[in-house]
Amino acid sequence: MATRYFGQRIRRNEDPRLLTGQALFTDDVNLPNTLHVAFYRSDYAHGKILSIDTEEAKKRPGVIGVYTAEDLGDYWQRGPLLVPPPPIKDIVFNERTQVPLAKDKICHAGEAVVMVVAESRYIAEDAVEDIEVDIDFLDAVVDIEKAMTDESPLVHDDIEKNIAAHVVQEKGSYSSIRDKAHTVISRKFIYDRGTAAAMENRGVVANWDERNQQLTVWDTTQAPIPIRNGLAAMLGLSQSQVRVIAPFIGGGFGPKIMMFYPEEVLIPWVSKQLKRPVKWIEDREENFFSTTHERGQVHEAEIAVAEDGKILGIHDVFVHDAGAYAPYGLTVPINSQCTLLGCYDVPNYYSEFTAVFTNKPIVTPYRGAGRQHGVFVMERLLDLAAQKLGMTPVEIRRKNFIPQDAFPYDNEIIYQDFSPLVYDSGNYEPALKRAVELIEYDKFIKEEQPRLLQEGKRVGIGIVSYVEGTGIGPYEGAKVSIDPSGKVSLVTGIGTQGQGHFTSFAQIVSEVLDVPVEDVRVVTGDTLEFGWGAGTFASRGAVVAGSACHEAALAVKKKIHKLASEILEASEDDLEVSGGNVQVKGVPDTAISLGELAAKANPLRGAVKPGTEPGLEATSYFGPSRGTTASGVHAMIVSVDPETFLVNIERYIVVHDCGRVINPMILDGQIQGGVAQGIGNAFYEQLFFDENGQLLNASFMDYLLPTSLDVPKIEGDHIETPSPLNPLGVKGAGEAGAIPVGALYAQAIENAFHDCNLEILEIPLSPNRLYEIISQNKTKEQI
Amino acid sequence: MATRYFGQRIRRNEDPRLLTGQALFTDDVNLPNTLHVAFYRSDYAHGKILSIDTEEAKKRPGVIGVYTAEDLGDYWQRGPLLVPPPPIKDIVFNERTQVPLAKDKICHAGEAVVMVVAESRYIAEDAVEDIEVDIDFLDAVVDIEKAMTDESPLVHDDIEKNIAAHVVQEKGSYSSIRDKAHTVISRKFIYDRGTAAAMENRGVVANWDERNQQLTVWDTTQAPIPIRNGLAAMLGLSQSQVRVIAPFIGGGFGPKIMMFYPEEVLIPWVSKQLKRPVKWIEDREENFFSTTHERGQVHEAEIAVAEDGKILGIHDVFVHDAGAYAPYGLTVPINSQCTLLGCYDVPNYYSEFTAVFTNKPIVTPYRGAGRQHGVFVMERLLDLAAQKLGMTPVEIRRKNFIPQDAFPYDNEIIYQDFSPLVYDSGNYEPALKRAVELIEYDKFIKEEQPRLLQEGKRVGIGIVSYVEGTGIGPYEGAKVSIDPSGKVSLVTGIGTQGQGHFTSFAQIVSEVLDVPVEDVRVVTGDTLEFGWGAGTFASRGAVVAGSACHEAALAVKKKIHKLASEILEASEDDLEVSGGNVQVKGVPDTAISLGELAAKANPLRGAVKPGTEPGLEATSYFGPSRGTTASGVHAMIVSVDPETFLVNIERYIVVHDCGRVINPMILDGQIQGGVAQGIGNAFYEQLFFDENGQLLNASFMDYLLPTSLDVPKIEGDHIETPSPLNPLGVKGAGEAGAIPVGALYAQAIENAFHDCNLEILEIPLSPNRLYEIISQNKTKEQI
Repeated sequence: MATRYFGQRIRRNEDPRLLTGQALFTDDVNLPNTLHVAFYRSDYAHGKILSIDTEEAKKRPGVIGVYTAEDLGDYWQRGPLLVPPPPIKDIVFNERTQVPLAKDKICHAGEAVVMVVAESRYIAEDAVEDIEVDIDFLDAVVDIEKAMTDESPLVHDDIEKNIAAHVVQEKGSYSSIRDKAHTVISRKFIYDRGTAAAMENRGVVANWDERNQQLTVWDTTQAPIPIRNGLAAMLGLSQSQVRVIAPFIGGGFGPKIMMFYPEEVLIPWVSKQLKRPVKWIEDREENFFSTTHERGQVHEAEIAVAEDGKILGIHDVFVHDAGAYAPYGLTVPINSQCTLLGCYDVPNYYSEFTAVFTNKPIVTPYRGAGRQHGVFVMERLLDLAAQKLGMTPVEIRRKNFIPQDAFPYDNEIIYQDFSPLVYDSGNYEPALKRAVELIEYDKFIKEEQPRLLQEGKRVGIGIVSYVEGTGIGPYEGAKVSIDPSGKVSLVTGIGTQGQGHFTSFAQIVSEVLDVPVEDVRVVTGDTLEFGWGAGTFASRGAVVAGSACHEAALAVKKKIHKLASEILEASEDDLEVSGGNVQVKGVPDTAISLGELAAKANPLRGAVKPGTEPGLEATSYFGPSRGTTASGVHAMIVSVDPETFLVNIERYIVVHDCGRVINPMILDGQIQGGVAQGIGNAFYEQLFFDENGQLLNASFMDYLLPTSLDVPKIEGDHIETPSPLNPLGVKGAGEAGAIPVGALYAQAIENAFHDCNLEILEIPLSPNRLYEIISQNKTKEQI
Repeated sequence: MATRYFGQRIRRNEDPRLLTGQALFTDDVNLPNTLHVAFYRSDYAHGKILSIDTEEAKKRPGVIGVYTAEDLGDYWQRGPLLVPPPPIKDIVFNERTQVPLAKDKICHAGEAVVMVVAESRYIAEDAVEDIEVDIDFLDAVVDIEKAMTDESPLVHDDIEKNIAAHVVQEKGSYSSIRDKAHTVISRKFIYDRGTAAAMENRGVVANWDERNQQLTVWDTTQAPIPIRNGLAAMLGLSQSQVRVIAPFIGGGFGPKIMMFYPEEVLIPWVSKQLKRPVKWIEDREENFFSTTHERGQVHEAEIAVAEDGKILGIHDVFVHDAGAYAPYGLTVPINSQCTLLGCYDVPNYYSEFTAVFTNKPIVTPYRGAGRQHGVFVMERLLDLAAQKLGMTPVEIRRKNFIPQDAFPYDNEIIYQDFSPLVYDSGNYEPALKRAVELIEYDKFIKEEQPRLLQEGKRVGIGIVSYVEGTGIGPYEGAKVSIDPSGKVSLVTGIGTQGQGHFTSFAQIVSEVLDVPVEDVRVVTGDTLEFGWGAGTFASRGAVVAGSACHEAALAVKKKIHKLASEILEASEDDLEVSGGNVQVKGVPDTAISLGELAAKANPLRGAVKPGTEPGLEATSYFGPSRGTTASGVHAMIVSVDPETFLVNIERYIVVHDCGRVINPMILDGQIQGGVAQGIGNAFYEQLFFDENGQLLNASFMDYLLPTSLDVPKIEGDHIETPSPLNPLGVKGAGEAGAIPVGALYAQAIENAFHDCNLEILEIPLSPNRLYEIISQNKTKEQI
């Protein structure tokens, strides 16, 4: 395949619109006569609703409607879970999906109880203050380990224990090899809660058009098509009566895909009731409570290794904090379970998890989606084993890498996409080698670190690896059409949240049709434009939608060949499509522009004969048999201020393999953003709850995000191991940057304090926490 | 084929919306911030523009923009004609398409010269009064016969004569048989101008969305897709950036299909300029000048018959009034030329026409689209020949009908759709027989008429026949989709103006999928919903779009069988689709609802394998090889008031053959409406121009439409001669009612005055004109 466009560092088509403020975001949708919504949200995390008094609110001038659960009737028929649990034997799964407005019981602080609709948001907010809700406070379920005990209060009264799910997956037999191991290392690992903190909060604008009996919804969703389908089912409409538009979105990262957020059904529902446009834009405080969280897990994990460092087996039992409901199935803990195995040949694996309900906001995937937990546990176990065996982190990893000739490599467990966890391809050793080179690992250990330590500077190096299951099904579609102007229209259903789809998808089509990337107009995220597909999640856009774009472009190219062959009276094999033309190879005089050909494909007479279609247009679908496996190695050098315990990243290296690269510039951006969020996850961002389930730091004053000063320049390189599972050979890259950062911080900081026997067994860290851990350690050491 | 839905008299799905005022018409589109347009239109029919002074208009508060031809730049690049002239040998065609705003020269009264855009229509209209246009008046070209002379002024300075086109078509050799004829009859026939006078005038609302770089246009057009394509080309956009919606329309009848009306490009253009929504709704006075007219022709025609009444040949030379421009090619005169041959076996035919430019509004198709002129000439010639030979009108027609075994019957000339004029099927004798029976022809002639004449009552009977070329290409498409609710979505691009498409198309799909008609939601006339096709014209909706609906439904049924076969583990042949379910034949326990099956066709896992598509959805296209030939016989009994010459229709019979009937109730409505317009054309509606090209009766005070009191109950019957050219066997029916009415009036009135040697050689008639003709005739008779 030529690579005139594919693989090139091409500037993004969408940037002029974004940079000049012309891109449409949900809050930009201002329809005449729009009503605005504010919610009364529970102050308590757990309690019985005794009474709700909305009389005063209803009297306030400008208030149009005040709704409680009672008003909603029984319209609330849920569609299926977007991502149901995979077919694992003996799985326990107590599906609990959140209600749009709390009825009888409050399950987490911030849960919506009353919806106020008014002529302005100001009036709606004021009216919320008029509402009196009498709640009988109940003890809250907060600690996830205690949540499983018999003594714990129950989040959901109809389940005997707070068990959302219990899943065991096993490969080989860990118990049979444990005793034969040279070294066994057991630790408890904690990976605590955070939130995605997208730049744009959530928002929904809905407009029920009574004349056309048509509902249009603008929604900051990553999955407009499933939202369309679900809304139709819940509101008793056919799918053709509902149009969901996911316009430009200021960051998705996972939490913006849900089936459904309460607001996503309430706003359309009330628009249909009132026959007026209705708007709700989440404010930042609401975002901390009503947008989903991630990352609360506690692992009791064990590694058994041979004397040479070869892994004999892993045993991991973990508790996963589902929050108050489980609307997203078990994607996060399944990902933790499946990603833990990493780049390594692990012959025996026992993994058991319990997902527990707590009186905290719901947990769903957020960039990495549970994978970072698994990577953290595995990489930490390897580091501890290496230390015990006197190996370097590099050595123990190299020792255990799955060799290149072992692909496809079957891990003998089931992945979130219902398929066996089989790695399609990979080449881990060169990535590690490249990272070691780039960061000058040996030089640092042998020269730099001793020299700096002598200067009183605490510096450390880390190097970790990971795999990431990406590009899962079910499928996406794309429609490619050549306009008589010669420009190309490309429509997909997938939606976009800043990933550069307007460019990378265009590059895929440009490569096939040999037209400039800026001449490919991409439309995405509008169910009226394209109504089939799933959405943007699981690093699947380029793999699944990208492959559909490729297939559709090939189908159009076939039509070009066929028609040009008729017109030029030449064999299809003798034709070439290049530079916006089709011509007989080597005979430029025969060139017909693609635009002209498009016009000829839709003539005034004779356009359609039996079995043919007009125009140069094709719609194709791509559904991969299973996900592709991306991988990478991150390395960094940190310096730690011994007074403040601030950690400064001196160098950060990413050697990344996501198969064939579509646009290195966009990929660099994805990695940069991912690492930035990973840094936040690892060292800045942690949500703190008190014993009543109250979130203590629900503002950017208290919940710290890394700034541009905290995120270093990312250096690195790409290894391209094409995936055999799609025609482009691509793998997902969106989440990768964020996944191994916690493990990397832990190793690098330990390395900086290698003289202190420091063990980092938890994430997130912070200067405070680091001080506490090191203080404890020093005490221990002194004992 | 079963006919549970197809062929049934089913109430219209769209009527609740229409009857409760919920249907969206263009004038219902009220976007915030909308600007309104009024036009300065020329008072003169012909003249040079010396100067335009818009300074005062620009100063008026609330005026946003005032535009003349100078302001438009060179964006005006026309697309191809929607219906270019057919490939007839030695054709002359001087294509002249109207300009959006007159530049340098005025070619007809009412031509737009200046566009005013203001905050309200009131302000815009007032500002039009501020405009001064200095015009150097030129002699107008009005009379179509004089227009061809060397002495005539020229409408377009760059053509030597006012010749828009000259076409000769010939079958056999008329000149070689003329001398051998027993009887030759020559007459001059006149068929004068009228206008469609739709209930809703034209209107355009355009909204350029700068953020999305997307143009949305609501347009009272019969051809939203060609308008979309043309707008994209003219405004330098890709087709995917333009959405044209033709909502409900209060009557199309032909004049609402144009490429382009000036307003159709000016309103979108100025919306893009000003980045605001812009609206223009034609008022009734504007409609008389700026919406196209029809029907000005003068024929010099001759019939040569044998003694037994057998037609030996027809010779016809006619002049067609094109008006000031020829944007619609030669459809109207070609239709006249081709339809003249009627139901008859005419071995020799010479037809020559000259289309002339005049300083009058443009002529384009209007219900019948030139066919009535041909029918009038032929039927009149037959009547005159019959009289000469002592035959009845019934006898001479029966004598000359193409026999049933002669189909397909080749007329050896070219039709407007570029195909040879070959009648696909027909059965004329039974239709005539049925009409004779229903109107009790013999009884009337032998008993009623003599009796009534004795009572001093002038009563007459008429019976005429016609064929109509319908259902021409190029093609239409349809997308059928089964919703998980079990409801069916059907999308076509064709647009609708009251024909009942929401029901008849639904019936076609219901018949295939056996679902209730009210469960099929039809969407049409929105290029974003469906972007391929041509539009509603030439009585082609049911034939072309209907067949596409049928094909798409069959494709969906195939998918139903395939998937159900997998699920039920049964052979596809053993399955049946009925009552909203699919099941193993005779085993109701196996029934799966179509909704459930639709959900299974788009599962969360495994929906798409290579080469497959998700869901139960299919898009199909249908492009007929050539048009189908509908036919019919109309008969009526009139009484004429001998004092006032008012003609009262006592009975009106239509025996109609449009192949297989989809919905007899809708068909009856089409016929009723057609006959009503035919009555208007024949006896009420005539546009009068003075020698300066001024339209003298541009209001409903002066241009008379028949009212419900003037239009009788239509009785009748259907003959079904299926078309072999489409899978449904249907033929077009939309225009038929209007076509033979002029000829019928002439014959019936002559018959009422059969004792006066009256000859009616012109249409429209009126009480006044009838009085004049009869007076002349009486004088003649007395001489």
